[in-house]
Amino acid sequence: MQKITASIITIGDELLIGQVVDTNSTWMAHKLNNIGVWVHRRLAVGDDWDEIWKAMDDESSQSDIILITGGLGPTADDITKPLLCEYFKGKMVTDEATLEHITRIFEVFLKRPMIERNIKQAEVPDTCTILKNERGTAPGMLFEKEGKLFISMPGVPHEMKGIMEDHVLDLLQSRFELPYIGHRTLLTFGIGESFLADKIKDFEEGLPSNIKLAYLPNYGMVRLRLTSVGEPSIINKALDTQFAELKELVKEHLVSDQDLPMDIVVANLLKQHHATLATAESCTGGYIAHRITSNPGASEYFYGSIVSYDNSIKQNLLKINPEILAVEGAVSKAVVTQMVKGVLDVMKTDYAIAVSGIMGPDGGSSEKPVGTVWIAIGNNRSIEAVRLHFRFDRQKNIELTAMNAMNMLRKFILENHKG
Amino acid sequence: MQKITASIITIGDELLIGQVVDTNSTWMAHKLNNIGVWVHRRLAVGDDWDEIWKAMDDESSQSDIILITGGLGPTADDITKPLLCEYFKGKMVTDEATLEHITRIFEVFLKRPMIERNIKQAEVPDTCTILKNERGTAPGMLFEKEGKLFISMPGVPHEMKGIMEDHVLDLLQSRFELPYIGHRTLLTFGIGESFLADKIKDFEEGLPSNIKLAYLPNYGMVRLRLTSVGEPSIINKALDTQFAELKELVKEHLVSDQDLPMDIVVANLLKQHHATLATAESCTGGYIAHRITSNPGASEYFYGSIVSYDNSIKQNLLKINPEILAVEGAVSKAVVTQMVKGVLDVMKTDYAIAVSGIMGPDGGSSEKPVGTVWIAIGNNRSIEAVRLHFRFDRQKNIELTAMNAMNMLRKFILENHKG
Repeated sequence: MQKITASIITIGDELLIGQVVDTNSTWMAHKLNNIGVWVHRRLAVGDDWDEIWKAMDDESSQSDIILITGGLGPTADDITKPLLCEYFKGKMVTDEATLEHITRIFEVFLKRPMIERNIKQAEVPDTCTILKNERGTAPGMLFEKEGKLFISMPGVPHEMKGIMEDHVLDLLQSRFELPYIGHRTLLTFGIGESFLADKIKDFEEGLPSNIKLAYLPNYGMVRLRLTSVGEPSIINKALDTQFAELKELVKEHLVSDQDLPMDIVVANLLKQHHATLATAESCTGGYIAHRITSNPGASEYFYGSIVSYDNSIKQNLLKINPEILAVEGAVSKAVVTQMVKGVLDVMKTDYAIAVSGIMGPDGGSSEKPVGTVWIAIGNNRSIEAVRLHFRFDRQKNIELTAMNAMNMLRKFILENHKG
Repeated sequence: MQKITASIITIGDELLIGQVVDTNSTWMAHKLNNIGVWVHRRLAVGDDWDEIWKAMDDESSQSDIILITGGLGPTADDITKPLLCEYFKGKMVTDEATLEHITRIFEVFLKRPMIERNIKQAEVPDTCTILKNERGTAPGMLFEKEGKLFISMPGVPHEMKGIMEDHVLDLLQSRFELPYIGHRTLLTFGIGESFLADKIKDFEEGLPSNIKLAYLPNYGMVRLRLTSVGEPSIINKALDTQFAELKELVKEHLVSDQDLPMDIVVANLLKQHHATLATAESCTGGYIAHRITSNPGASEYFYGSIVSYDNSIKQNLLKINPEILAVEGAVSKAVVTQMVKGVLDVMKTDYAIAVSGIMGPDGGSSEKPVGTVWIAIGNNRSIEAVRLHFRFDRQKNIELTAMNAMNMLRKFILENHKG
């Protein structure tokens, strides 16, 4: 079976001057990979006729499928639709079904009269097949040329995702005989990439040639991924065998044997034990609560958070002793320990997390430099606290504090429910 | 003056199977754009010898500068360094200064013995110039070939940023005669892209040909950007004139005439008025507090948040009347209004934001479908509340709730300090 390859082209000046992070192509690559399409190139170009044209030529010479997002808006800087019309030698026609759909969106949802620009979004090259955009006004378009498929979608993530899920994934699966791509991913915490690599050196060297190992490090966490392409029954068996061995080798540092972020691992653990959680956050400013509540159904195990950014809140709501605050400072073992007690008391949950630190860029001292953080976790019976020191920027320090706090809680829950 | 063009190549299988969002090239593009380097292509390829080689050939045929990130880790899947060695016809040698630097990182910061893999990171092709990585063990490398510059950096964002700021930006500015790229960006809220385009149609058509207008829509917010390239004094004058006109045309919807996110606009407003803020968050789960505290110095104006995810927290900490909760439900005008009062009372701030809603995917009813949210903002004298309805996914609904709440607060503060 031949590999079916894809290129993703994202169009927009905003991508090239750094105003927008491209999350679309990450999402698309993930979905395509799941169905066995091999995304081997991702390219971003500006709203420039020649650049887009060249990208179409180049990518179609190297890939079976070319997915294009962006540049379909109703404004003058969006030139992708006329370009596609010319590239595929068509002429612009109004698609009646699309016009009806746009009209309905304006009547029912937006409750505003349409303007000429909106009507123009129903115009498409007559050489394309329409892929209906249930979530917006710019339709997806499918073109074919010399055996290659070209799919153009709007750049609004929500709309692109709708078109992918409603049309594109099915269409590709029915059009191509796709190979099976198997992955096994695990997450480790607290061991650097090079030490991990050393630990599994023999394993890595002994891997059969059709299984590939990848390291995905991310500040204190490393995901390890085994990948193989081929016949599902054969591949899955081989992957399972190797994966079991890998898990055993890294078990000391293993957070999850699935491709899950830390917050979902913790959420699953809380659900499994019918336990509840609250947080008391100073330096993370609500980020831990945000991460946990990003997951649907979080109300089952998460009660809430007291973000005590100002010391007055620590005193009034978390009952931190003002003397301790004055003597030890807000970033101290005594304070985070009291924060855990305080929030357990107020929120009446089974577990609590508390953090206090100096995330930077300012506010450090020689004794407590920027990046110093105290984390405490616990329940009504016992509380554990650690001091950590991060040396990244504010955003990364906040993320790392959250990840470490969640990992501490994870270990604490596992310990508590042992035996 | 000729445009100096750049391609950014990011290397890593994780980018092509959708496990990692590429934030590096966004950051790099932003920095390069600021110094007048025209990034016209961004390409991601996997850890594959032929793909990387081809990318080097292709991009150097189209750009003056080729910036490469990723693939420099200490593990076997990272093949970029040997590839660069062969591409630039060098041989591997140990760089003593780099070895010393790595040794020091292990001794002073990591406090662990080095292993063979770490030592190997000091090996570099003898055809490169080292760009010291102050923040990590993999050095940056500069190569030159047929008048083109190639710069290879590690993929860890923090390390890449250090090398860019310590070396690359200065180096490019001294090596090339760079044009000046001027931008003027403003942020609007609450008007769709097509309506905005209609409002400024005549302005857009009347723009001089050397000024380009771009629309950057993002769910309810649209940024408008004017760009021009050339002689600073001439360009800035022309941009200022056009920008003043544009601001006047959209003033009704104008949030900021700088390229700032909503949370910084609100932060600046609070600072300007020496005012303080607290939030009471149900459905956003701490996201508003997180956004506000992402900014250094937030403690100046932000006191804290009560994330009242569970109704018991709404009753106990925010003093929501249980009868009202039972009759009106948590997602109601009465409850968010009481939440504002409750958090103002507890936190003693000048302003407060409260939100309660159903973010999905579950939990909706016919009366209050998924996406329904009540937002209230106010101070001790008056409170305003609105009901909104979003139709996106959980994450976007949370973001939109936060943005709308912050925008309401912004308008409220401006109204309050009028006259």
